[in-house]
Amino acid sequence: MSVGGPSTFLDVAVRLAETAAPIARKYFRTPLDIEAKADASPVTVADKEIEAALRSVLRNTVPDHGIFGEEQEPERLDADYVWVIDPIDGTRSFSIGKPLFGTLIGLTYKGTPILGILDNPVLKERWIGCKDRPTLFNGKEARVRTCPDIARAWLSATTPHMFHGKALTAFDALKAKVRHTVYGCDCNAYGYLAGGYLDLVCEADLKPYDFVALVPIVEGAGGVMTDWRGKPLGFKTDGRVIAAGDKALHAQALKALKG
Amino acid sequence: MSVGGPSTFLDVAVRLAETAAPIARKYFRTPLDIEAKADASPVTVADKEIEAALRSVLRNTVPDHGIFGEEQEPERLDADYVWVIDPIDGTRSFSIGKPLFGTLIGLTYKGTPILGILDNPVLKERWIGCKDRPTLFNGKEARVRTCPDIARAWLSATTPHMFHGKALTAFDALKAKVRHTVYGCDCNAYGYLAGGYLDLVCEADLKPYDFVALVPIVEGAGGVMTDWRGKPLGFKTDGRVIAAGDKALHAQALKALKG
Repeated sequence: MSVGGPSTFLDVAVRLAETAAPIARKYFRTPLDIEAKADASPVTVADKEIEAALRSVLRNTVPDHGIFGEEQEPERLDADYVWVIDPIDGTRSFSIGKPLFGTLIGLTYKGTPILGILDNPVLKERWIGCKDRPTLFNGKEARVRTCPDIARAWLSATTPHMFHGKALTAFDALKAKVRHTVYGCDCNAYGYLAGGYLDLVCEADLKPYDFVALVPIVEGAGGVMTDWRGKPLGFKTDGRVIAAGDKALHAQALKALKG
Repeated sequence: MSVGGPSTFLDVAVRLAETAAPIARKYFRTPLDIEAKADASPVTVADKEIEAALRSVLRNTVPDHGIFGEEQEPERLDADYVWVIDPIDGTRSFSIGKPLFGTLIGLTYKGTPILGILDNPVLKERWIGCKDRPTLFNGKEARVRTCPDIARAWLSATTPHMFHGKALTAFDALKAKVRHTVYGCDCNAYGYLAGGYLDLVCEADLKPYDFVALVPIVEGAGGVMTDWRGKPLGFKTDGRVIAAGDKALHAQALKALKG
């Protein structure tokens, strides 16, 4: 790394979060033009300005690393280290003045997520996960709760409209087995799971920038996060993700999803 | 009112919000026993403790007024003034550590909502609505935005699972006409609408304590809030509520709901 630059990848990640937060706060609850992307999902000037700022930091501090972000083309995906960033996860929430969105900053090494920050710039809540280290929530260790019985579990997803066809059938089967299902947390749901307030997050139609940062956060808090077949998450994941605070519950959830 | 007591009903309402907030914050993100009520909806010690505290304030300050709350039996519903309170609107959100819940404090005069406070104790966001006065958000005037075209409107509901049978068909018809639908704001959605960040809130299966406080907030910000037939909201409402920031949009939404 460059002389005078940050000393660890975590320092880089924190700098990215600190770069994104004031931009997000500047635009939150202001009148914004909201464009529709090719997939009809919304994007604002805030998403674009944050991603440009984060890429600038990365190019200046870790120029040989790759970048996979939501709003611009990938760069150097063949590098050992690839940063996987979502400037605003929850653009719909951001757009209606609902503060439950977040900036996601993930780092992969040879395809495996090794570092993640979930930063909520309005609520000033930050989760940090580093492989083989305890997850931190605003500087304090976060820990999942036990819930070995699916009938007592609380489940979250951003919206039921992220599930289609067989995925919807599978999600409905899971939903029928849990105690309560809550929508509308976006990425924050994984933080609540890491903190022990929620038992399951099940989502579909996700891109790597939606989940890479969250894997070290969930795992470092004692949870498990895989695809719907129980496989580790990476760039080739089909967009279907299940996180559980309790390993026994994870197994029950996978079984419910299989039908 | 009693000598030495508060001088206006708004003072009483603010005192209720100030009474509720520290109790909600005390229990938020702590391990809680969550009971199921007769309708399977969850209730916690926080809901019960807040409602008991609010009723105590009301009995001491306005003993001749009625009380209609979520957790205890109604009192003096034949009084001219009836307080309509929900200690925690969004108990599911509260239970998973998601800060988008709120305390709702409404006052009716001969059945008509005349005063309302929506207080979010964790985010410290408070909307105050008084009949014929501008709505205040944290002390500043809140104002809806114009959106006369339903195809450009942003719609919110707590969850799609609050709609059943014909109500679900109607909601789906409305959802098909708007630009985006977002879930999971609970009562806060009406505040975002009053602030001009959101265009429509459509819900069903509500009780008077879920909406009475919100009517003066939406109306005082320039919006309109009725049942799905366009009738004023009161104790006899069938639980179906539609709020719009723009009157022309309200008419289009009613039409969409009729199919």
